[in-house]
Amino acid sequence: MIEIENPNSISMRKKIAIAVHGGAGTILRNSCTKEQEKLYKEKMRESIDAGYSILKNGGNSVDAVEAAIIIMENSPLFNAGKGSVYTHEGTHEMDAAIMNGKNLEIGAVAGISKIKNPISLAKLVLLKSEHVLLFGKGAEKFAKLNSMKWVNRKYFHDEKRFEQLQKIKQTQKTQLDHSVCDSKEHNSHKYGTVGAVALDCFGNIAAATSTGGMTNKTFGRVGDSPIIGSGTYANNKTCAVSCTGHGEYFIKNIAAYDVSALMEYKKMSLDDSANLVINDKLAKQGASGGLIAIDANGNIAMPFNTMGMYRGYKNCHGKEFLAIFKD
Amino acid sequence: MIEIENPNSISMRKKIAIAVHGGAGTILRNSCTKEQEKLYKEKMRESIDAGYSILKNGGNSVDAVEAAIIIMENSPLFNAGKGSVYTHEGTHEMDAAIMNGKNLEIGAVAGISKIKNPISLAKLVLLKSEHVLLFGKGAEKFAKLNSMKWVNRKYFHDEKRFEQLQKIKQTQKTQLDHSVCDSKEHNSHKYGTVGAVALDCFGNIAAATSTGGMTNKTFGRVGDSPIIGSGTYANNKTCAVSCTGHGEYFIKNIAAYDVSALMEYKKMSLDDSANLVINDKLAKQGASGGLIAIDANGNIAMPFNTMGMYRGYKNCHGKEFLAIFKD
Repeated sequence: MIEIENPNSISMRKKIAIAVHGGAGTILRNSCTKEQEKLYKEKMRESIDAGYSILKNGGNSVDAVEAAIIIMENSPLFNAGKGSVYTHEGTHEMDAAIMNGKNLEIGAVAGISKIKNPISLAKLVLLKSEHVLLFGKGAEKFAKLNSMKWVNRKYFHDEKRFEQLQKIKQTQKTQLDHSVCDSKEHNSHKYGTVGAVALDCFGNIAAATSTGGMTNKTFGRVGDSPIIGSGTYANNKTCAVSCTGHGEYFIKNIAAYDVSALMEYKKMSLDDSANLVINDKLAKQGASGGLIAIDANGNIAMPFNTMGMYRGYKNCHGKEFLAIFKD
Repeated sequence: MIEIENPNSISMRKKIAIAVHGGAGTILRNSCTKEQEKLYKEKMRESIDAGYSILKNGGNSVDAVEAAIIIMENSPLFNAGKGSVYTHEGTHEMDAAIMNGKNLEIGAVAGISKIKNPISLAKLVLLKSEHVLLFGKGAEKFAKLNSMKWVNRKYFHDEKRFEQLQKIKQTQKTQLDHSVCDSKEHNSHKYGTVGAVALDCFGNIAAATSTGGMTNKTFGRVGDSPIIGSGTYANNKTCAVSCTGHGEYFIKNIAAYDVSALMEYKKMSLDDSANLVINDKLAKQGASGGLIAIDANGNIAMPFNTMGMYRGYKNCHGKEFLAIFKD
């Protein structure tokens, strides 16, 4: 017997879409110049295009979110990869995670210092390791054995960010992983996280997150980005999610998986679930941040409870959207 | 106006209970001598008593689960603390986490080598750090600054376990964190995790998990034990959970929080939720393991899909239970 496929389901499977974020925080329109706004938006467009082009050519959502993240990791604008902030010791400790919603396969790395693209190391863990989360020197040993691109400390050096560390050291505070666009302190306040979620033509969704952590952080602190369920989650049944914000609260609230659980168990929509987590649960706890999420129908949600979030998408109707501020 | 408290709610708040586990795996009655069975049960009773005595004296559930775990960490019988297995490099990398269901406060550490009681370091993170998850040398630096008990490598040395590493190295495999009671290989097959959940007289629940990881593990692998939501979770609204088993699957499935989400969003009972996660979701994926869980009413669930799980409790009626095998 030849089974006739429902034409609607074929068309549904042909939908492709991608969304990205570059961190949420105190991002005010009046402290951000038009030139800065343009720079951020252009880089996000480039990131979206890199992922979308893979999806358009029949590539899968895991490769698409990796490609989108790599563009942001290679830019000094965002707090991930090249733009990572300094730890208390003047080093860099980066975290990243990626998850495939088709089969729940995951890869995550934490506390790595010398890898150009942490998200690609996370994908390598997904593809080649029997484990799912590797940290520190062990993760880098795994990278070396698999011929991953290595860079020295100079690659991450940025004079202004180093000055920022010295200033913050005097206050004995850490800077939370929020993003600020400030014309006076341009290039010196980048504490964000970058993330991407995508739907491919096979109907599979994926999520990825990468971060350079917090300025002046000590004690090998790990935030929510590499924690599956907290900062990153993907499941075809529900949604793919990448979070950004005050990581400790996203961990406490298992924020990324909570969006999925609300959809699966309470039959709530993507939009309602994502909003409940960010604007109700987290907001009530005083936890600032946001997330981007996509479902297998190509719906996209991008709630945040801060003044702004670097964000953008190209949806399944080909519509492009780029924004930074709340309104 | 003086509010009269409902006598039922007063009595409910006076309930105290505790449950512990010492790992799940291929634990067969016919490969375990009566003497070994007695040893394990006696140590679990000691662990339960340590926690219960705190609860009985009006102590809180966080202190009770810590006390219960310390007894097991100090014993060479279980794969945690003193009994931790060797990594590929012949070192020890331990992970632990603790969560307070009253306020969702958490503390977790991963990849630590020189701390006698990892669970106490996790509690220190809960009490004194602005962060929630610390790894490696950073976590140990935090421990040192807070005068935590330090031990040298010799403390963890065990000749038979070292031999076990050499054997496994030849096979180039890792040993999953399952537990085995084997009369022929006694003391050489301990790959478990230890955990405790408790309800205190204030109606607050807590969960804690501690592990020595996998024999011959490489690359700084982190399992589910220190991952909040996956190996450990507690929330007064629903339940406190500590998991043991094939960690990678518990991470993929956000297993501990999933029990809570099923209770909160689907209004399922503790028993049904815990069983669905272990005997349906995880079992269908070929993922072996188990969990212990408690709710604020003192209900206890201890499902596992393996041949056995070291487990025991003292419930809110004062009834004590200790078991190892499936039946």
